[in-house]
Amino acid sequence: MVNERDPRLLRVEDMVRRLLRHKADANLSNALEKMHAAEVAQIFQHFLPEERQEAFSLVRNREHRASILTESDSHIVRELLEPVPNEDVVPLIKELDSDDARYILETLPDERSQEIVALLDAPETEAIQDMMAYLPETAGAIMTDSYVALPEELTVNEAISQVRKASEVDYIFYVYVIDSNGCLRGVISLRQLLLADPSKTLSEIMITNVWSESVHADQEHVARVVSRYNILAIPVVDDDNVLVGIITVDDVLDVIREEATEDILKMAGTHSYQDEVTSLSARRLAWIRLPWLFFSWLGGILAAQLIYQYSDQLSKIVALAAFMPVIIGMAGNVGTQSATIVVRGLATGRIDPKSWLRVISKEVTVGTLLGICYGLLLGLLATYQFASVAWLGFVVGLAICVVMMFSALLASVLPLVLHRFRVDPAVATGPFVTTGVDVLGLLIYFNIARLFLFI
Amino acid sequence: MVNERDPRLLRVEDMVRRLLRHKADANLSNALEKMHAAEVAQIFQHFLPEERQEAFSLVRNREHRASILTESDSHIVRELLEPVPNEDVVPLIKELDSDDARYILETLPDERSQEIVALLDAPETEAIQDMMAYLPETAGAIMTDSYVALPEELTVNEAISQVRKASEVDYIFYVYVIDSNGCLRGVISLRQLLLADPSKTLSEIMITNVWSESVHADQEHVARVVSRYNILAIPVVDDDNVLVGIITVDDVLDVIREEATEDILKMAGTHSYQDEVTSLSARRLAWIRLPWLFFSWLGGILAAQLIYQYSDQLSKIVALAAFMPVIIGMAGNVGTQSATIVVRGLATGRIDPKSWLRVISKEVTVGTLLGICYGLLLGLLATYQFASVAWLGFVVGLAICVVMMFSALLASVLPLVLHRFRVDPAVATGPFVTTGVDVLGLLIYFNIARLFLFI
Repeated sequence: MVNERDPRLLRVEDMVRRLLRHKADANLSNALEKMHAAEVAQIFQHFLPEERQEAFSLVRNREHRASILTESDSHIVRELLEPVPNEDVVPLIKELDSDDARYILETLPDERSQEIVALLDAPETEAIQDMMAYLPETAGAIMTDSYVALPEELTVNEAISQVRKASEVDYIFYVYVIDSNGCLRGVISLRQLLLADPSKTLSEIMITNVWSESVHADQEHVARVVSRYNILAIPVVDDDNVLVGIITVDDVLDVIREEATEDILKMAGTHSYQDEVTSLSARRLAWIRLPWLFFSWLGGILAAQLIYQYSDQLSKIVALAAFMPVIIGMAGNVGTQSATIVVRGLATGRIDPKSWLRVISKEVTVGTLLGICYGLLLGLLATYQFASVAWLGFVVGLAICVVMMFSALLASVLPLVLHRFRVDPAVATGPFVTTGVDVLGLLIYFNIARLFLFI
Repeated sequence: MVNERDPRLLRVEDMVRRLLRHKADANLSNALEKMHAAEVAQIFQHFLPEERQEAFSLVRNREHRASILTESDSHIVRELLEPVPNEDVVPLIKELDSDDARYILETLPDERSQEIVALLDAPETEAIQDMMAYLPETAGAIMTDSYVALPEELTVNEAISQVRKASEVDYIFYVYVIDSNGCLRGVISLRQLLLADPSKTLSEIMITNVWSESVHADQEHVARVVSRYNILAIPVVDDDNVLVGIITVDDVLDVIREEATEDILKMAGTHSYQDEVTSLSARRLAWIRLPWLFFSWLGGILAAQLIYQYSDQLSKIVALAAFMPVIIGMAGNVGTQSATIVVRGLATGRIDPKSWLRVISKEVTVGTLLGICYGLLLGLLATYQFASVAWLGFVVGLAICVVMMFSALLASVLPLVLHRFRVDPAVATGPFVTTGVDVLGLLIYFNIARLFLFI
């Protein structure tokens, strides 16, 4: 997708920059106050650290300051809060729902975040400590405490007046019904509540067949459930079925977008969090990318040994050496294509590991067809250019065809095997395919050459 | 992510298969009726065509049948409806919101879908024809007509009773306020309506600052707005600001997931719709992948010409040929990493094209660091193994380092340039990097060799 940045936002960005340059603090403060927090965060992304810190200090409204932080990437949050004393961070944290508070505290250095938690009031400290106890990327870590739960014996009339009072809850679309132990019993949409007979109790009108998730559930699993079943919010319960939070669809949106990016980056063996590109040093980034490249290096070394075994033959027919890159290059690319299709298919659930035979045979067929096509092309070209070496065109053409077939086979089998052994195919497929294809490709090539060129 | 299929769903799948095998039609019909439509669609994915058709024919409830279709991939919809006569498809279409109806009709062959539209009643035909007129992947194509819009002069009390009557609308969270021309004036959440003074008019209490999108807006743009600003539903207006539909967050979820998959597949130069892997023939799939591989082939051919220029030198020092694969392999992989980071960064908006210098210099620094590291490793190995050829280790080590640096440069500059000229970097970067790196890598390698080995 060609992502054109929103032209309106670009104009706003220029305006903010201009006001900053002219030190028009009062105007800038007003302008920032009127913008959506997500927009401010967007604009801050393209500012220099000093610029952002200065602009942020001009945002007066506490709620707006807090919202800007929750919309910003973690390294920017850390930076924006650096000059802010702990006593001023505390009221910001208090403004936020528990999931957002957790996010902010996690971006800060451990020591500082503990100091801030210590400054909170007892119930808040407890709520946040509960929240921080959940493992990252679980339902517990992304849920919010901003929901309405009412006892089952309440009447519809009483429930409506309770909903009216719950002013601090952001969105109310569902009312959750709990028993005296806090266990989740049912759910009612706000609209059903509105339609119901005012004298009935909640237990009479609620839907009892509620989909809930455990606090320990993986966030990706929750994202899949929410998107598969078109749910707007899913209640989260602890081990005793006590309702402890809800996950709303907008939190799930972030999870889906992040996981997709992670998957793309993982397949290329780079750092998997987009954030890190801007926040980490080049040395650290190189270090993260080192291991993946090692397999490619290893493949190259093995290939070098193999080639050296054929020194005599190669020095006799140098044309053979000339076609090595195209053969392993084509094999590598057709392999990457097959691997990408299978890895992504497994991740999205479109490919069923049980129908592995169908998946592999399709990839191999495609690889072979492509091999025949490029084999013919390359064969003709080699025959024309090296007419002096009999059979060379045939050898090169046949080799590329066979190599592409085997490469498709290897690249489609590998992710399925890795998946079977619960190794993440997105991480491991690339390196193995890279190494395997180089060595396999040359082995096949040289053996075909030996057979037909009698060397 | 290791995507473990839901064990509960696997058990349900086995159960359905067993009932099918035993022709236990009544039981199967009951079981399918009780399942969520999305679950049925999930299970159908792993069935053979005959199995799905048979199971689908046992679903009696019309609404459930319609929902199962909307949850299924397009090629499965086409297949499931094949044996169903047009007269029986019509009531299914009538069950659906306009966006879902559009989806089903689009999966069918043109002629058949026109026959079905002709069988609908006049107002429905019109609504669907309006819908079909919007270009694919625009807001108009994914919006739904399932919302509540009320005139601004209504009182809160009247509005509440209108909401109670709108029973066919799936989710009501917001009430949209329109003027006598149907133009969007404001919005009120259901909860605000509940809290408001019953005698006030809607125009007095509505929020007038409503975010709306044009019917012509790109679906990805809408998805970004919804996810950036955490909106649950966004109203869609035509060129005269008349409210014509809404897009809900769950439709956006599908867009985000699909676009991510498309991007991943596009980068590998394969068919970009996951659907197609299962629905298209191997020949068609090979055809789609052919052009991307052509660039790789071209790069290989150019490399072959280049190598042949150095025939004499290579036949003298065969060890030089041995290290060609590792040098272009490492260059290709480091290039792929850089390209992936930049392409994905541009797509998600994390990389700002305006800060191109910072992006490129970071990638080049990382590439150089990795180059130094692997250059040393390879240099030492080559020196040890080919002690007879003086300078060989040095040449090979230096070459890999320089080549990796240039590869990172090329792979980070290219997507930025493509983006500047509005060519989708996800599609075009791969082929150019592949071709460029092979040729560039060998050129650098041979020239360094010439310089130090005096050949």
